[in-house]
Amino acid sequence: MPAVIPDDCVGLVSPECIHFDHPLELSCGRTLRSWDLMIETYGELNADRSNAILICHALSGHHHVAGYHSMDERKPGWWDSAIGPGKAIDTNRFFVVGVNNLGGCHGSTGPNTPNPETGKPYGPDFPILTVLDWVHSQALLADHLGIDRWAAVVGGSLGGMQALQWSISYPERLQHCVVIASAAKLSAQNIAFNEVARQAISKDPEFHDGHYYEHDTVPRTGLMLARMVGHITYLSDDGMRDKFGRELKDGKLSFDFNPQFEVESYLQYQGERFSSSFDANTYLLMTKALDYFDPAGEQGHDLAAALEPAQCRYLVVSFTTDWRFSPERSRELVDGLIAAGKSVSYAEIDAPQGHDAFLIPIPRYMEVFSGYMNRIANALPQPNGDSRHAR
Amino acid sequence: MPAVIPDDCVGLVSPECIHFDHPLELSCGRTLRSWDLMIETYGELNADRSNAILICHALSGHHHVAGYHSMDERKPGWWDSAIGPGKAIDTNRFFVVGVNNLGGCHGSTGPNTPNPETGKPYGPDFPILTVLDWVHSQALLADHLGIDRWAAVVGGSLGGMQALQWSISYPERLQHCVVIASAAKLSAQNIAFNEVARQAISKDPEFHDGHYYEHDTVPRTGLMLARMVGHITYLSDDGMRDKFGRELKDGKLSFDFNPQFEVESYLQYQGERFSSSFDANTYLLMTKALDYFDPAGEQGHDLAAALEPAQCRYLVVSFTTDWRFSPERSRELVDGLIAAGKSVSYAEIDAPQGHDAFLIPIPRYMEVFSGYMNRIANALPQPNGDSRHAR
Repeated sequence: MPAVIPDDCVGLVSPECIHFDHPLELSCGRTLRSWDLMIETYGELNADRSNAILICHALSGHHHVAGYHSMDERKPGWWDSAIGPGKAIDTNRFFVVGVNNLGGCHGSTGPNTPNPETGKPYGPDFPILTVLDWVHSQALLADHLGIDRWAAVVGGSLGGMQALQWSISYPERLQHCVVIASAAKLSAQNIAFNEVARQAISKDPEFHDGHYYEHDTVPRTGLMLARMVGHITYLSDDGMRDKFGRELKDGKLSFDFNPQFEVESYLQYQGERFSSSFDANTYLLMTKALDYFDPAGEQGHDLAAALEPAQCRYLVVSFTTDWRFSPERSRELVDGLIAAGKSVSYAEIDAPQGHDAFLIPIPRYMEVFSGYMNRIANALPQPNGDSRHAR
Repeated sequence: MPAVIPDDCVGLVSPECIHFDHPLELSCGRTLRSWDLMIETYGELNADRSNAILICHALSGHHHVAGYHSMDERKPGWWDSAIGPGKAIDTNRFFVVGVNNLGGCHGSTGPNTPNPETGKPYGPDFPILTVLDWVHSQALLADHLGIDRWAAVVGGSLGGMQALQWSISYPERLQHCVVIASAAKLSAQNIAFNEVARQAISKDPEFHDGHYYEHDTVPRTGLMLARMVGHITYLSDDGMRDKFGRELKDGKLSFDFNPQFEVESYLQYQGERFSSSFDANTYLLMTKALDYFDPAGEQGHDLAAALEPAQCRYLVVSFTTDWRFSPERSRELVDGLIAAGKSVSYAEIDAPQGHDAFLIPIPRYMEVFSGYMNRIANALPQPNGDSRHAR
């Protein structure tokens, strides 16, 4: 918890639950008749509503993107490093919206919220969602907030896929699209790791075919294993060596099956902590949305054709040691954007932290990100009515 | 199963169980008073017993290295591609010994064999073993077979670690050491993946703290998950893309939690098959031996110092897309050998198959391997009494 909230933090923030009675038709063919989205906002929407930024979250993310919910909160929102007064996404200039995706487990309608038709949690009956479904729900959120066009839609990892889908599905509703540590589709290896996670969860005897709420239990082991596998893929081989090496937990080998190495204890701790804070059905849904995302798939695997409708400008960022969404995947996206005649800036950031780098304020990353966002802010109408152009 | 056994196959072979009443002191401080090793041999030991090759196996391997146990056997031994008449390890010239390591589950003394003191399977009471323990047991096997010095000790992956340990611990007992797709120690990432596998097995409710034999059950889910994770690390990202891509199992997405992609079905199948054929306690032991292996660790992390005692020549082979034991790990070993003044040949083979490449007869790999082994064979005393030197 913070002793004092730093000047470049958005400070104490509160989430808000937005209810929608607008039916949402989903890719799977089903319809959500009424649904909620949990959101948080930082900064002020300007007079012509042109300075709004949507932050899309990754697999285990949510609406709490920056600031603190209370002085007792241990850590700030998950992307506090990039969002706040004077930061890459400057809340003195932008109105920032964080949203917990549908199917999430942090207050938005999802498997752990009541199905209005039964009064019981949806559980495994919650529909499988796609990135496109999320984007449609976020467009209705924009309507609710009176935002016709986002200054930018921004996301890392699975969040970057949502930003990309926005640019394809609602080309006139965003000026900029920022895609960080992401990909236009998962690789077979990505899908394979997701399937290990799903098997670990769904084969846990406490899973009860997704009805664990009614059994007053949680598939803790499955979630722990899923998170352990995930966590390894978020870090680079070199990063793990730098962080843990082969350091022994108790200084010497004990020839038993207890964790011997620091890295084992660390992973177990991460896995166990996650298993008591995240919903298993949501984890399954999120990994499925990742697997299914493939906008080029419907265009004969022609990524440039899929990107054709876009009207925004793009910033694409990747990290050298990210092997979950490697720079090669970002370069494929950049190539597709160039082939489609779009304006794209691409930065490949030298960073040892693997996929996790996108959450870390690495100097060159923050310079590139701030530089791009400042140019967007500079082009906005200024309080005196002028539009200040790029310096 | 083979319709006809090919000419370059060792043909029908039979395993043999060797009993040892020689007490074996283990690294953990415990002693095995009597123990068995299952072995297979191919080819003929020559008059001066100088043409023997020891094959050390990897995590899930065993003594059945080449040939068929019967005409009904679906596949030959696990390294049939490299061992047989005229193959890289030419059984017309070499006497080849395959052994199932102690702690294994294919007939050698291990967790699933009876503890002579209780009459019940050892289960989790079987001592934790190290690579050094295996090498000591294999030295006693060499004594039993009347082999003072191996022409070569050969292994891939965990097998390569045993070959390396042989060269350090019994320098006068091998002429050549062949280390393929291996490393002088695991990385933190390797250990992390092993720990996921161990957690999956040990947290399976059917594991019963390792006493599942008595409960007449098997921790099938845990073993399946362990194998799925392992299998992903044996293949390269590119290899998986070439093999599976994003091919859909039934041609279209079905929006449910059944496997949608070919890669998911494949992994599940591999995992399930493994879970009905491998012993869970053995899997735990093998991963621990991998984690603990670090000959430089006892020499102040100076690999060259650890390799100082060796007298043999080395062949080290790695594969470009192997990310479980990457070429970088082999180059570290080669650097250590050069620093220690040893004779080492190193080949980095361009191969898309990842770690699995070491089991595949890739042309350049087989040329390098055959070339090296032929020179060993040419230096052996010939049947007419002369020693034929390298052509």
